[in-house]
Amino acid sequence: MAQKRLGTQTIKLSSPPSIISAYSIVGPKEGEGPLGKYFDTIIEDEFWGEQTWEKSETKIARECVANCISKVKLSYEDINYLLAGDLINQCTPSAFGNRDTNIPFLGLFGACSTFVEGISIGSMLIDGGFADNLVCATSSHFCSAEKQFRFPLELGNQRPPSSQWTVTGSGSVMLSSSGTGPYITTITTGKMVDMGIKDANNMGAAMAPAAADTMYMHFKETGRAPSYYDLILTGDLGYIGKSIVVDLMESRGYNIRSNYNDCGILIFDKEKQDTHSGGSGCACCATTFCGYIYNQLQAKKLKRVLLIATGALMSPTTAQQKESIPGIAHAISIEI
Amino acid sequence: MAQKRLGTQTIKLSSPPSIISAYSIVGPKEGEGPLGKYFDTIIEDEFWGEQTWEKSETKIARECVANCISKVKLSYEDINYLLAGDLINQCTPSAFGNRDTNIPFLGLFGACSTFVEGISIGSMLIDGGFADNLVCATSSHFCSAEKQFRFPLELGNQRPPSSQWTVTGSGSVMLSSSGTGPYITTITTGKMVDMGIKDANNMGAAMAPAAADTMYMHFKETGRAPSYYDLILTGDLGYIGKSIVVDLMESRGYNIRSNYNDCGILIFDKEKQDTHSGGSGCACCATTFCGYIYNQLQAKKLKRVLLIATGALMSPTTAQQKESIPGIAHAISIEI
Repeated sequence: MAQKRLGTQTIKLSSPPSIISAYSIVGPKEGEGPLGKYFDTIIEDEFWGEQTWEKSETKIARECVANCISKVKLSYEDINYLLAGDLINQCTPSAFGNRDTNIPFLGLFGACSTFVEGISIGSMLIDGGFADNLVCATSSHFCSAEKQFRFPLELGNQRPPSSQWTVTGSGSVMLSSSGTGPYITTITTGKMVDMGIKDANNMGAAMAPAAADTMYMHFKETGRAPSYYDLILTGDLGYIGKSIVVDLMESRGYNIRSNYNDCGILIFDKEKQDTHSGGSGCACCATTFCGYIYNQLQAKKLKRVLLIATGALMSPTTAQQKESIPGIAHAISIEI
Repeated sequence: MAQKRLGTQTIKLSSPPSIISAYSIVGPKEGEGPLGKYFDTIIEDEFWGEQTWEKSETKIARECVANCISKVKLSYEDINYLLAGDLINQCTPSAFGNRDTNIPFLGLFGACSTFVEGISIGSMLIDGGFADNLVCATSSHFCSAEKQFRFPLELGNQRPPSSQWTVTGSGSVMLSSSGTGPYITTITTGKMVDMGIKDANNMGAAMAPAAADTMYMHFKETGRAPSYYDLILTGDLGYIGKSIVVDLMESRGYNIRSNYNDCGILIFDKEKQDTHSGGSGCACCATTFCGYIYNQLQAKKLKRVLLIATGALMSPTTAQQKESIPGIAHAISIEI
């Protein structure tokens, strides 16, 4: 077996990369939420001076990568790879936002799991001796996502209680072969899990089995108990998905009630912000991490975090063709 | 600088992975083309027993991965990672086709550069000690692509002479840390290049500058001359894109006329098959490689190949919003 593998899904990094920079940009609604003070930039409205929501998301993606790099006084030519993706058809915000950077570009599509997918691949490229510094980025936008996946906003469509609110924003991290942490120490790459959920307004339920599967494999293959971590954090399962994960893990003998939470729950105030089952979108996990969690790691208020980004690998076409929704979840452990 | 880097875009593998299996599935038109006898499976019609073109592409993606693995008498549990992507919104053929495999899944989006993007990342994961065997796959389908990117086929729209014909099919390779070649020896990862082309019916011209840029950087950073290779092969530039690349390389002092070709030119008979500027789509490069080129490498008729897959990172939405088309090209050298 390859030297760095712990099992069928988990690898252990021999020279753990450091997260030396993190930058977050969010929309006004996210800025008014409980994590508002942790974000680097809060834009004033969903257009941010652009003519379309897609161009707004593109600008958000561009500015987030640019600021992640300039924050640590580096420039584009210091970055060996940019790994990025988003939810929009053909991942155009990630591409168009970064087309002028001249950074070697690896486009990803993992739906809302993209942030951790990028960090997983990026960590392996650094640990393997292929890169010194690289950036992993993702974005989402409430308006572009609603338009593409659900209904025109102008329709004023009612949202069922199980639905989630796509986070407007972007999160970027820079991984480096040098640096003093926080370190990426292990990676558990998810496999697709499809339990037959067809309701595109209940993504939490569709993704929860994949999250529990990856979490279980992580504990099994690392030999760690849930108590090893100060915080176990899923990406965007929301209230319904979180409760399913708690139950699924309990049925497998793991009690995660005391130290498990979900970015989709943290990012909005359920009572005041009318976001139903919580936040979602690639940026939900990315901005919560780059804003709040990275701050807590730097302040040593969190020392060991298991971050599990979850994705629903569906499209409007597959929904129209009566397909169920495959979920996926990728996990990384981050330690100081 | 990280130990395996040769320059800003190129890395050299210290333990080059072997391509131990390759499998190709193509549609009837590709089967009737000049490379027909090299493909593993030629399907009888564009639906292949399915009710929609998307489901047909999904079946093609599934069967190609399954056969790539069974061809060398391995099974899904022997595969550490599946790296896959395609052109369809949210890359659903790759995901839905492989959702039951239980292979840890890394979804990619590089448009038609995806095949080489996957092999690039996959090679680094093996060389870095993270994987023993992994599969890189991609697919495209003439009918699902036309429907999504251009016009309904039922419209019988005329195609301009600069347009290309999306290849129906899928190509999958298995990379392994053991094996006796052909080996992936170097990787040159592309950066985005956008020269302002806005014509979605002239993808070859939009992607050619990116191909020339990556090719130039590959020669510069490896110190190799074009004559080092028996064959330099781009992915899907077609006739127009190929002639632009020849000119661009000549202006940079490289004569590639004698050993350069393009998969989009090889796969169809221009006179008999009415494919205008040639083939395109993720499967153009993937099936030409997995069918024809892999055969020639195994027969030692080709010993050193530089494969450069090219992608146009646009969408119908960006075209409607008057954006130009960013191109990207990723290169790998394959040697026996």
